[in-house]
Amino acid sequence: MSVTRVQHFAVSLDGFATGEGQTREAPFGHAGERLHEWMFTTRWGRTAQGLPGGTGGADDAFLRLFTPGVGAEIMGAGKFGHPGWQDDPEWRGPWGPNPPFHTPVFVLTHHTRPPLAMEGGTTYHFLDATPAEALATARGAAGGLDVRIGGGPTVVRDFVRAGLVDHLHVVVVPIVLGRGVRLWDGLEGLEHDYDVESVATPSGVTHVTFARRDAEV
Amino acid sequence: MSVTRVQHFAVSLDGFATGEGQTREAPFGHAGERLHEWMFTTRWGRTAQGLPGGTGGADDAFLRLFTPGVGAEIMGAGKFGHPGWQDDPEWRGPWGPNPPFHTPVFVLTHHTRPPLAMEGGTTYHFLDATPAEALATARGAAGGLDVRIGGGPTVVRDFVRAGLVDHLHVVVVPIVLGRGVRLWDGLEGLEHDYDVESVATPSGVTHVTFARRDAEV
Repeated sequence: MSVTRVQHFAVSLDGFATGEGQTREAPFGHAGERLHEWMFTTRWGRTAQGLPGGTGGADDAFLRLFTPGVGAEIMGAGKFGHPGWQDDPEWRGPWGPNPPFHTPVFVLTHHTRPPLAMEGGTTYHFLDATPAEALATARGAAGGLDVRIGGGPTVVRDFVRAGLVDHLHVVVVPIVLGRGVRLWDGLEGLEHDYDVESVATPSGVTHVTFARRDAEV
Repeated sequence: MSVTRVQHFAVSLDGFATGEGQTREAPFGHAGERLHEWMFTTRWGRTAQGLPGGTGGADDAFLRLFTPGVGAEIMGAGKFGHPGWQDDPEWRGPWGPNPPFHTPVFVLTHHTRPPLAMEGGTTYHFLDATPAEALATARGAAGGLDVRIGGGPTVVRDFVRAGLVDHLHVVVVPIVLGRGVRLWDGLEGLEHDYDVESVATPSGVTHVTFARRDAEV
């Protein structure tokens, strides 16, 4: 049975998953890369940059769960591009010609367009759908594998609130962002439906994992 | 040199240090005791309940820092009692005749009253003062020892924002409270002034410690 999962979704101590003032040049707004610096020093992160070495501990282990067993991703319009990308018919996402997904990717947007086939197996599909509808579509395309909910925070929150997420992996970064978009709003009592574990790593972040008690896998 | 410190101040994943709907019977509102259950299973917590046994790991170690070296506490009116205690001339705090402080305790309130000497060395003093003024007064009474900022969240935040806190120890409890009083509001960029460490423990909580870089101790 395939599951629906959120992988290494980073938030600040005050719960913001992105900063304020998002633009094409600053996709996380005033947060810059501060929610993701812990990734860059891992073996996984360094390999992605074409660099040798890196750490091989829990940060790296969690990051390596990103690809295996995932057959499709669902993401929000805010992750696919800067505000206003819908008005640019040439926009093909911020990840270049060979995006790191290598599966079908379903972009939730009220402004749909035809699918975009990229190099390396990624195809972007544009869907105007509820979370449950989008998940059904993504499952159909995932070939029996898992579906990753890729963010941003509004999309993760909507899917969690709809009871559609089996595994939720949040990375708490010890910074106080002060403003932006919060992950936890509207998720009161989330812990009741999940087994929760926390592990802090030498990079300073804490991995908090929520595994749904009634998940079939 | 004495320092100013906040000890084992518990917040939810979404940053709430107390729930909504605080009353005399429910001092943490709808949060109940859920922010503090991790304490009860430690040796320190069990001893306080007159019980044997308990865990002896990092949760216990952090809790044992509560008393040693502290010469005074500052707390807010909201910690000293339920909303409206100021109208009750008989109110002597929620900790009974022998409170667990055993030092002078400065209660910040606009409704001052004469000092209250309790058993065991605790004396409550009622101050209408700014954070800096209150700290100067508490330092004067602490006999060269440290001053503990005891909470609630508004008081901790005010003292941190005023640059008066040297050591801040926050315990992130993996629950989503959804409503109440947040700790982190207005503390954007806090991490720039502190060395920050995180450690998660088997109870599920994460201890996040902020040590001010320019602190003399």
